[in-house]
Amino acid sequence: MSSEKLETLKARLGEVSDIHSAISLLHWDQEVMMPPKAAPGRGQQLATLSGLAHRLFTSPEIGELLHDLHEGGTLTGDDAKLVSEGLHDYTLATKLPETFVQKLAIAQSSAYEAWVKARAASSFADFQPHLQGMVDLMLEKADHLGYENSPYDALLDEYERGMTADYLGGLFGDLAPRQSALVDRIVNAPNQPDLAWLDQEWDPDAQWKLSVKILKEMGYDFEAGRQDKSVHPFSTNFDITDVRITTRINPRDLFSGLMGSMHEGGHALYEQGLRESDRRTPLGQSISLGIHESQSLTWENIVGQSLPFWKRQTARLIKAYPGQLDGKTPEDLYRAVNRVQPSFIRVEADECTYNLHVILRYEIERALIEGQMKVSEVPEAWNAKVKQYLGLDVPNDAMGCLQDIHWSHGSIGYFPTYALGNLYGTQFLEAIEVALPNLWSDIEAGRFAPLLGWLRTNIHQVGRRMTASELITHVTGKAPSAEPFMKYLEEKYLPLYGLA
Amino acid sequence: MSSEKLETLKARLGEVSDIHSAISLLHWDQEVMMPPKAAPGRGQQLATLSGLAHRLFTSPEIGELLHDLHEGGTLTGDDAKLVSEGLHDYTLATKLPETFVQKLAIAQSSAYEAWVKARAASSFADFQPHLQGMVDLMLEKADHLGYENSPYDALLDEYERGMTADYLGGLFGDLAPRQSALVDRIVNAPNQPDLAWLDQEWDPDAQWKLSVKILKEMGYDFEAGRQDKSVHPFSTNFDITDVRITTRINPRDLFSGLMGSMHEGGHALYEQGLRESDRRTPLGQSISLGIHESQSLTWENIVGQSLPFWKRQTARLIKAYPGQLDGKTPEDLYRAVNRVQPSFIRVEADECTYNLHVILRYEIERALIEGQMKVSEVPEAWNAKVKQYLGLDVPNDAMGCLQDIHWSHGSIGYFPTYALGNLYGTQFLEAIEVALPNLWSDIEAGRFAPLLGWLRTNIHQVGRRMTASELITHVTGKAPSAEPFMKYLEEKYLPLYGLA
Repeated sequence: MSSEKLETLKARLGEVSDIHSAISLLHWDQEVMMPPKAAPGRGQQLATLSGLAHRLFTSPEIGELLHDLHEGGTLTGDDAKLVSEGLHDYTLATKLPETFVQKLAIAQSSAYEAWVKARAASSFADFQPHLQGMVDLMLEKADHLGYENSPYDALLDEYERGMTADYLGGLFGDLAPRQSALVDRIVNAPNQPDLAWLDQEWDPDAQWKLSVKILKEMGYDFEAGRQDKSVHPFSTNFDITDVRITTRINPRDLFSGLMGSMHEGGHALYEQGLRESDRRTPLGQSISLGIHESQSLTWENIVGQSLPFWKRQTARLIKAYPGQLDGKTPEDLYRAVNRVQPSFIRVEADECTYNLHVILRYEIERALIEGQMKVSEVPEAWNAKVKQYLGLDVPNDAMGCLQDIHWSHGSIGYFPTYALGNLYGTQFLEAIEVALPNLWSDIEAGRFAPLLGWLRTNIHQVGRRMTASELITHVTGKAPSAEPFMKYLEEKYLPLYGLA
Repeated sequence: MSSEKLETLKARLGEVSDIHSAISLLHWDQEVMMPPKAAPGRGQQLATLSGLAHRLFTSPEIGELLHDLHEGGTLTGDDAKLVSEGLHDYTLATKLPETFVQKLAIAQSSAYEAWVKARAASSFADFQPHLQGMVDLMLEKADHLGYENSPYDALLDEYERGMTADYLGGLFGDLAPRQSALVDRIVNAPNQPDLAWLDQEWDPDAQWKLSVKILKEMGYDFEAGRQDKSVHPFSTNFDITDVRITTRINPRDLFSGLMGSMHEGGHALYEQGLRESDRRTPLGQSISLGIHESQSLTWENIVGQSLPFWKRQTARLIKAYPGQLDGKTPEDLYRAVNRVQPSFIRVEADECTYNLHVILRYEIERALIEGQMKVSEVPEAWNAKVKQYLGLDVPNDAMGCLQDIHWSHGSIGYFPTYALGNLYGTQFLEAIEVALPNLWSDIEAGRFAPLLGWLRTNIHQVGRRMTASELITHVTGKAPSAEPFMKYLEEKYLPLYGLA
């Protein structure tokens, strides 16, 4: 009886999963292939399919199946977990009234338009009422979802399940002053690299081919995915057999295309590595945005910006760009790819300054949600924090608090996951280095299989069987902490800048 | 009250239309972009969305809205037509029981697999039981749908609404002997062109660029569509703002890529030309497969294989293939593109022999459905008809009755629409030549706008407001007939082969 119900539940959840796959394809196509005039029609198709997926998923049939199976108590192991995860999603989805979802969609659409214009005009005042609207809507959302301590907890939970404002406050409060002090030391170090040679034209075809070659070596399966070009690089998936990435090639930038491909490739390896038997069920999904980001950053930063990696790749680059890199050593490339330079724009920030961008956003959005800051105070707070953390004077709102799209979508609680990815990734690294003593010599030899194997077994194949915090404690023996990341930064950058 | 119901109906039908758009994108992506390992997952997604579209469309809510609005009798004009067309589709969709649809889907899947193998082995015996199964299922389908005279009428109606076996019998019975006799005269004409020079390598990039240039001149809007490459060329649409085509470039064939692009471009111009205000409603759809094919053949054959067209394009081709076409005249290209050569394979057939391939399929499938032929007799009947109509001896089943995919899908009643496209196209041409006295000088000057304008006004913008037969009678003053096509063939090919 309960096994029959479980099969019915899986069939229903599978249908919802299929609709989400179609939605993801509609989005992918919109970014990569779609002709320009098709935008309004595509918006309508997306609205219809999203509404349909929500309606089907929150149907009484699925609700009853989930409750019956959960409360029946006869299921064990993965079956029990599948049901409890399904019930978690169902409960969340049914907590938001249809009227709220519609109100939010309308507000998002006008806030997005206002943001585009406000950013172009570099005028926060034009965006301010929309941001106020979003803060109000997110407070309403938090009330619908429920929380114990802070409404920010309810918002965070959507992106990083189980994470709380207080825990995050501890992590970031530890990290921010230390990372800022490190950046300050680096910026003032006498030993600054001369990187004038980077200012050349780098053949886009060669960049593309190199990225494909390295993606293949990483273990990305091109028979279950593809790489294309898009304005904003991203990864997406319709099934573990179809996980796609995009990249952007900048002819003036030797590294950004390749590092972008490795970043998206890291996301894609996670999705390609989910369990075959979990497909179309809640278990066959990634754990959280923070864990996802740990995978992209493992490949982009930890591997792709390491000296062993460049010991192998430098010869390739010299060959790929004839006459442009003659005489360059792996150490030269390693220094170049790891240049530290505080800047205004988050998406262009280097590994050493990046988290500071994230933390200041977290501090502002949390203060807004907890009522300690008014929306009108955002630009001033932003500029003060950029000065405090990065030592820079923000010239205008476009380079400051208007640069990111997230708040126009009401994505409050999302930014922290970027920094968590760095913390998780380096905390995993400590466990990997113990498990794989030859990690760095393997990377120097272009052998990524042991690393990928470890990630597959310990992270990817887990699906949603644990929360991020449970997984990290399980794998590393410690709760999530800022310590491994700070240690990683210091061990890497102090020598690079002659400070140790 | 009824206007409120009409709005609700339009919203519901719009949702179904959006799901069909997503299904079409899933198919397009499968043919053009999808990585190989994704096939099973994609099949599942397609099955889910197709089932969902059917379930939503046949929901009691839509049924009641359609019946209420139709029987209320207060609607007029387009609103009334929208409802009556919607009701027609609804009635058809609800006539097929779920059990039948599932049984058919399973049979299609195994028949398709068997057909692929049987064709590879050139063994009709391996496919015979599956074809028998399809004939039985199509008879069952005809019973569900209902018919007056022949079960073949019910099947035809799905592809060519209102067309009957008897009417078709009259058209094809008139056409086949005359077209066959013409082909016989041409084959035996002393004046055969020397086309050895066609046997060269034609730069694929040049072919591609030429096809894009000519598509743009035809009026195909690349901002509301795109061209890609695929194994089997096709056109598809997700909205009038997103109508895509694919082409196949054969480096050994000067014409097939370009003519294929013009063919698919003709289909696409039809879909791009539907009324903006009809979007997401039953009126915003093409009339029938026969009318659709008339549009592709107008551009591929009537325009693309005319002397005025080649008077303009020859210089372009000479430039596109340096040194390969020097000294060739428009007349040389015109002769080459219009070479008549009876052959075994329908999709490779020329304009002069093509219908004969179609008619023999129609005769066989109608005889099967009406019980005048046994499935076991198909190969013998096929080979006899190829001998009769084309004068050729079929060497094996792969080159004969196993060459087409259609019967493995149960697509019986589909083939005739290909030939109807030729008849309709040339019947329209007679009206166009009256309405546009400068048609051919415009084409010679590369001005396609008057022709496209006529097609837009008289065909595309009609949507589904008339049936094919009504439209043809409305536009040309005569019922569909084989006469214009035969006249067109004779006026074109007799001089070409020195027979007039």
